[in-house]
Amino acid sequence: MKTPEEIVKQMMKGDHFSRWMGLEIVDIKKGFCKAKCVIKKEMLNGFSILHGGITFSLSDSVLAFAANSYGYKCVSIETSITHLRPVFENETLTILSEEIHRGRSIGVYSVKIYNEKNILVSNFKGTVSISKDIW
Amino acid sequence: MKTPEEIVKQMMKGDHFSRWMGLEIVDIKKGFCKAKCVIKKEMLNGFSILHGGITFSLSDSVLAFAANSYGYKCVSIETSITHLRPVFENETLTILSEEIHRGRSIGVYSVKIYNEKNILVSNFKGTVSISKDIW
Amino acid sequence: MKTPEEIVKQMMKGDHFSRWMGLEIVDIKKGFCKAKCVIKKEMLNGFSILHGGITFSLSDSVLAFAANSYGYKCVSIETSITHLRPVFENETLTILSEEIHRGRSIGVYSVKIYNEKNILVSNFKGTVSISKDIW
Amino acid sequence: MKTPEEIVKQMMKGDHFSRWMGLEIVDIKKGFCKAKCVIKKEMLNGFSILHGGITFSLSDSVLAFAANSYGYKCVSIETSITHLRPVFENETLTILSEEIHRGRSIGVYSVKIYNEKNILVSNFKGTVSISKDIW
Repeated sequence: MKTPEEIVKQMMKGDHFSRWMGLEIVDIKKGFCKAKCVIKKEMLNGFSILHGGITFSLSDSVLAFAANSYGYKCVSIETSITHLRPVFENETLTILSEEIHRGRSIGVYSVKIYNEKNILVSNFKGTVSISKDIW
Repeated sequence: MKTPEEIVKQMMKGDHFSRWMGLEIVDIKKGFCKAKCVIKKEMLNGFSILHGGITFSLSDSVLAFAANSYGYKCVSIETSITHLRPVFENETLTILSEEIHRGRSIGVYSVKIYNEKNILVSNFKGTVSISKDIW
Repeated sequence: MKTPEEIVKQMMKGDHFSRWMGLEIVDIKKGFCKAKCVIKKEMLNGFSILHGGITFSLSDSVLAFAANSYGYKCVSIETSITHLRPVFENETLTILSEEIHRGRSIGVYSVKIYNEKNILVSNFKGTVSISKDIW
Repeated sequence: MKTPEEIVKQMMKGDHFSRWMGLEIVDIKKGFCKAKCVIKKEMLNGFSILHGGITFSLSDSVLAFAANSYGYKCVSIETSITHLRPVFENETLTILSEEIHRGRSIGVYSVKIYNEKNILVSNFKGTVSISKDIW
């Protein structure tokens, strides 16, 4: 079985969108991932703040890395996000996953994003289906 | 009060991320929006299919256009998405919003995305807070 | 394979809580269920309106009937509800399911509840896992 | 301003459904609530396990107590639950709330339910609207 680092490296290679966002892995362990991202102009919405889709995408990628790090391929079934504070251009965000549940076929993960002042800006929850396919 | 077309035009102007995605408005009415998008390579994830964050972002933008078209500024509070089928590079997606509820302070919208074969690929639900600020 | 009516009859037999709520099936077809319920005092919360857990439970039961009516046992994975209007004692509610997606292993259902004036009081979404076990 | 204990006592008085479920408050502080409940036969569903609506209702009540304990009336806007393990008759459940975010107008709470073996059986997330009405 590959290590979490090897799996994430392989995933990132083909993950054009995470690379476009500039998502940078800081720490990866089985069921856990910490990452960083700097907000650029192309990520803003019509209110001149970070588009909610980017906050979601960062959370979804970090969820995928945490869930797949055991070596079994996982796809998300249902995900939800609550936006708590606006995020602005040039801010550096920290994205942190937490494993709530890991069963045989279903996993549940919480992903929180913090700004530079360590204030929570979004709260994400994802349910994944765990397959028997190995990375 | 501005028309839905004027509001969406103004929103799109500053919405760098929707413009990066190539989101194209097909129809806009109070509480309703229909849009299109062609999937490009930068939108793929580590499984070589469309990143779930793009499906979410397309839905979230279309929700924002539909909800803001009445002339009052709306921000989404809580949003969730279920991914039903994989989407591949070069596919053209159609994004359709439906208004479930429009109260004084809360609105609920459902956004569905269809592929070229008219098959549902994702189901999104969003709850927005309606402010008294006018566009 | 049993008919939808036979399956729901069998499910209802052991479903003590749906029976306690007084949930009454009006119509059942594959993937569809319509039901009614009269709100009683034991269902109210500390604001003297219907407890959100009852609105949820009615939706969850109707989802279960609609999803299981094909003959394969289904369990819900992830469910969410938005409460739109308060409901009062003695009101009769109509609960209606709609099938959003039915794949091989995952089904998605929307359940809406209307009051006597035909006003939407809640909007529920449920994702179920479809097993190979037959009723 | 009333104390959290006084508010919850007042809420429980009119909360017929929480009383029917036998929900018992173990600890209450601003933004936090811990409670217990013994599962009875009337709470089971057609699979002879605890109806998902009861797990939801217990979480929703504990959310309401935690959110209202500051003294300002709060109503839930959007709530979701993931069911992780079946619960059986006569089990004693522990319900624990955690405050994720408390802003001026929006609060986000996570509620987890554990069985007697301290295993997580459900994971609930609720977003509430905070009014200016005082208890």
